[in-house]
Amino acid sequence: MPIQPITTGADLLTLTAHFKSNHQTIGVVPTMGALHAGHLSLVGASLGQCDQTIVTIFVNPKQFAANEDLSQYPRPLEADLAKLESLGVQHVFVPAEGQMYPDGFSTSVLPPDVAGKLEGEFRPTHFQGVATVVLKLLNMTRADTAFFGQKDFQQVLVIQKMVADLNVNVDIVVCDIVREADGLALSSRNVYLCEQERMIALTLSKVLNHVEALIGEGQTDGYEVVTEMRQMLIDGGVTSVDYAVIADPQTLNTAESISLPVVALIAAHVGKTRLIDNRIIK
Amino acid sequence: MPIQPITTGADLLTLTAHFKSNHQTIGVVPTMGALHAGHLSLVGASLGQCDQTIVTIFVNPKQFAANEDLSQYPRPLEADLAKLESLGVQHVFVPAEGQMYPDGFSTSVLPPDVAGKLEGEFRPTHFQGVATVVLKLLNMTRADTAFFGQKDFQQVLVIQKMVADLNVNVDIVVCDIVREADGLALSSRNVYLCEQERMIALTLSKVLNHVEALIGEGQTDGYEVVTEMRQMLIDGGVTSVDYAVIADPQTLNTAESISLPVVALIAAHVGKTRLIDNRIIK
Repeated sequence: MPIQPITTGADLLTLTAHFKSNHQTIGVVPTMGALHAGHLSLVGASLGQCDQTIVTIFVNPKQFAANEDLSQYPRPLEADLAKLESLGVQHVFVPAEGQMYPDGFSTSVLPPDVAGKLEGEFRPTHFQGVATVVLKLLNMTRADTAFFGQKDFQQVLVIQKMVADLNVNVDIVVCDIVREADGLALSSRNVYLCEQERMIALTLSKVLNHVEALIGEGQTDGYEVVTEMRQMLIDGGVTSVDYAVIADPQTLNTAESISLPVVALIAAHVGKTRLIDNRIIK
Repeated sequence: MPIQPITTGADLLTLTAHFKSNHQTIGVVPTMGALHAGHLSLVGASLGQCDQTIVTIFVNPKQFAANEDLSQYPRPLEADLAKLESLGVQHVFVPAEGQMYPDGFSTSVLPPDVAGKLEGEFRPTHFQGVATVVLKLLNMTRADTAFFGQKDFQQVLVIQKMVADLNVNVDIVVCDIVREADGLALSSRNVYLCEQERMIALTLSKVLNHVEALIGEGQTDGYEVVTEMRQMLIDGGVTSVDYAVIADPQTLNTAESISLPVVALIAAHVGKTRLIDNRIIK
């Protein structure tokens, strides 16, 4: 029998109260659906570490700006449920928008300072929407542990800092980026890419490979590296670059002189599709 | 042996983890200290309803504006602890500011719409500070139930709505206003009043008595009632009136025509002291 998704917060609370009274640990994997192997690696981690795993699927309107791709964001629910079932997931929370944001909903989380950089400059309301929905989902699932992908590097920092600042009783586990064989970081937005755009999209991971090699060879001039990153992206055919930086992995501050560890972060448009990728260099 | 306050979040988490593993319910009474019989009624309610009671004492700088009374706010810690001990309280959390807001703290709760009215007009950052510290304290104490006084009527609405919007797993219990024999609502700020000011301060509860009588007699003209409230306050000698309104107890919307239930709310200055009071009229 296919998984029957949980659709109301009330049903979810009943379930998780039962888990808690049995002293079972709860892992949550918050997603927007359109699940790929990156999401599934998070699910696998939760299944391995927690007594109970809840996957949430909710395309959160509050983290999209008016000009973004909310309406076309892929929503292949049946396929998602089949993938989760094949992994042995038993609990999937798929709320309607009115369950998450009923009439009169008006509280939100003003995210920590680290939300203001990079993505925050190009998507100024994005992390407020992310922080708010993640806090809600952590509370709704009563999660002991929550699993996020390093692919959304800055998102992880925002959530870790929010959890620390607001004393949320949850452990955050960060899982590695999953890539196609040719290096393309998995993303639900990759389905937007035509064949030619997909070739161009490979440039992001190629640039990160190159940067890692450069820094490995002793390059410490941040300005030179960043200039080269940007030039490689343009030469590779991307439509525009939102940012291409070398930054401190905790603060996201950029530095003129590279001192390890650092993180290389890229956001670029390929046609109408905005892609992000990153690499931690230790 | 006097109560030894808990001073760190880590110690508090150890304690509450122990309570949770024993399936004990936890009640929290968040206060700014300078405890009076109003606070103690909240403590009594928690002791009666919960297996474990934690009283928190923290004068939260984030809910004071620069021109307000943060520095002179009373902090009689020894007397507070003695009062709590005499009630049988065993757990008091008294964090230093650095425990609540360590360096780099930068997340906050943007409170719900109802925070923007009344107090929100005169103290525009107040409820953001309140919502943030209350959410932190709820998480730090892992409270099942939290106790607040109706004296801070709008604060209760803000906290109830925040808890609902963010799906915080806590029950909010609201306790009645405790008054002196002559009607003055208990407040930690009453210590600021000289004898003459204390006489003038009585005007607030007298006005509320009068309003309740008027409405009981069938007066439904909101404008007339509010005009009379304001005039009585001025005639009674208050220095200035921030607001004196008849409002819906859920939304705080004011209405030209009074239809029960309503809440009458007053904020007024007596000398340099700002006082609030309210009355629910059913």
